[in-house]
Amino acid sequence: MAYIIIGVMGPGRADSSEREAAYELGKRIAAEGWTLLTGGRSSGVMEAASKGAREAGGITVGVLPGSGRTGMSEFVDVPIVTGMGSARNNINVLSSDLVIACGVGLGTTSEIMLAAKAGKNVILLKQGQPTEPFLEQFGSKQFHFASTPAEAIDLARNLLG
Amino acid sequence: MAYIIIGVMGPGRADSSEREAAYELGKRIAAEGWTLLTGGRSSGVMEAASKGAREAGGITVGVLPGSGRTGMSEFVDVPIVTGMGSARNNINVLSSDLVIACGVGLGTTSEIMLAAKAGKNVILLKQGQPTEPFLEQFGSKQFHFASTPAEAIDLARNLLG
Amino acid sequence: MAYIIIGVMGPGRADSSEREAAYELGKRIAAEGWTLLTGGRSSGVMEAASKGAREAGGITVGVLPGSGRTGMSEFVDVPIVTGMGSARNNINVLSSDLVIACGVGLGTTSEIMLAAKAGKNVILLKQGQPTEPFLEQFGSKQFHFASTPAEAIDLARNLLG
Amino acid sequence: MAYIIIGVMGPGRADSSEREAAYELGKRIAAEGWTLLTGGRSSGVMEAASKGAREAGGITVGVLPGSGRTGMSEFVDVPIVTGMGSARNNINVLSSDLVIACGVGLGTTSEIMLAAKAGKNVILLKQGQPTEPFLEQFGSKQFHFASTPAEAIDLARNLLG
Repeated sequence: MAYIIIGVMGPGRADSSEREAAYELGKRIAAEGWTLLTGGRSSGVMEAASKGAREAGGITVGVLPGSGRTGMSEFVDVPIVTGMGSARNNINVLSSDLVIACGVGLGTTSEIMLAAKAGKNVILLKQGQPTEPFLEQFGSKQFHFASTPAEAIDLARNLLG
Repeated sequence: MAYIIIGVMGPGRADSSEREAAYELGKRIAAEGWTLLTGGRSSGVMEAASKGAREAGGITVGVLPGSGRTGMSEFVDVPIVTGMGSARNNINVLSSDLVIACGVGLGTTSEIMLAAKAGKNVILLKQGQPTEPFLEQFGSKQFHFASTPAEAIDLARNLLG
Repeated sequence: MAYIIIGVMGPGRADSSEREAAYELGKRIAAEGWTLLTGGRSSGVMEAASKGAREAGGITVGVLPGSGRTGMSEFVDVPIVTGMGSARNNINVLSSDLVIACGVGLGTTSEIMLAAKAGKNVILLKQGQPTEPFLEQFGSKQFHFASTPAEAIDLARNLLG
Repeated sequence: MAYIIIGVMGPGRADSSEREAAYELGKRIAAEGWTLLTGGRSSGVMEAASKGAREAGGITVGVLPGSGRTGMSEFVDVPIVTGMGSARNNINVLSSDLVIACGVGLGTTSEIMLAAKAGKNVILLKQGQPTEPFLEQFGSKQFHFASTPAEAIDLARNLLG
């Protein structure tokens, strides 16, 4: 059996509240025995989630946009070097059994959309007020909202069934 | 000099108002002497815009998600076969001098996000009410709103300078 | 009906004999009413073939590896900006009705292989002596050898049927 | 520090001698404490190498061409789902610290070429007689020949320095 892979997506420019949530998500993902997948860069949500998972003894995968490891988080165990920029966002979501979006950004939103389009469940955390009405118009059943990392992990456990 | 390429992005499942707007966009893009680029499929906004541009004597490029031409619009002149599914959305926006999003959908929204991230101007047409507050939170200067195809083309002409 | 697209693949570092052959291929492709597709860069076989096709009144497509138009040949009409480096080689061959490989290089050989794998006919021109025995071991019917641009075009016409 | 990742590339239709070599490569890669990366499918060299590494307690990464896990080897721990067909070959080589090509095929040869182009060392094993003269013409220093899996691993250890 392959590992269970949880993608945590979020902005490289994250505020401290988003980074703290990402760090806690990483810790809890590792504690569940799941593998973390992020965009792999040494900033924001990617860095914080990878740090959390590493510290809790989990394995971390980083799907990098560049053609080398420049800018990679030191907390990535398995670097996947795509050399395809933001087109790698689609690989992030296709490779994840479930996606947690932590915070709002242009790239993150593209991943939320691509994930739902690919039929993946997406758990939304630390989203601004305008996100819910925006997502509702798609009539998709893939979107789920959580208010804390702990709640997101509970939701993920249920969705993974 | 390379052709000026205008990307028209929109859902494959479009309603008649979105398809009419896309058809008119295609006509007007060709009338300006610009080249149309779409996602190339034989449905919704892609089909309608390509039909409009073809009828007005323009050249149409279709950047296809599949590994062959199955499902391609008959109004595509230059099929680009990517074989990479929704990851081709990033090619759509990188290849466009300017992007016009006509209607709302999961894939279309991913393209709006990727376009803004790549520093492209995006003109939004036929968007639902929740789109504007959602986009405003990104603080990006790439987003522009139009209420008719004619207005979108005027805006495009100004932005292309 | 979409345009007939002929991909001309060859090294960026081409010698004068390869560049002359590429230039003549471009001219003849345009004279047939076909559309030329290359890797789009301003060097070697890509530049020479695009120049030939442009001068003979044909349309030229350039599928670029970078995330912008830097390094693009001035003879490209339709730039497809992939932002995915050498992974774009697969798009080059999938988008071509038929591939002509002019000269030998690492990237060119990858395109020859990907083309044959995708079931495309590949016409080989200006290949070194070791190429034929190397290709023969694959037992593929996709490989065809020509000794001049004129012969390559004749062969292409027959293969396109 | 990220894991050391060794890519083992080879045909899906491999003969028993190639599969045995791939299985032994997988075992030895795991024994060195390295992580194995393959194309992830349940056939030929990919399957055999993944089985070997799994049995020896190593971690196995599979970079899949499809948009889901259909056809995946049961010996893959970390599936990377690219949805981009043979364009994923470039990700295989960019993600590997070093590439070992075991056997000859169209896709494998494309990976050998892309690896050398990206400046990766490529160790060639179980190649037919025409491969060496073919590769020599590129004048690349990236190509290294081994005659057994044990020799390939010794060579890899030296090259990783």
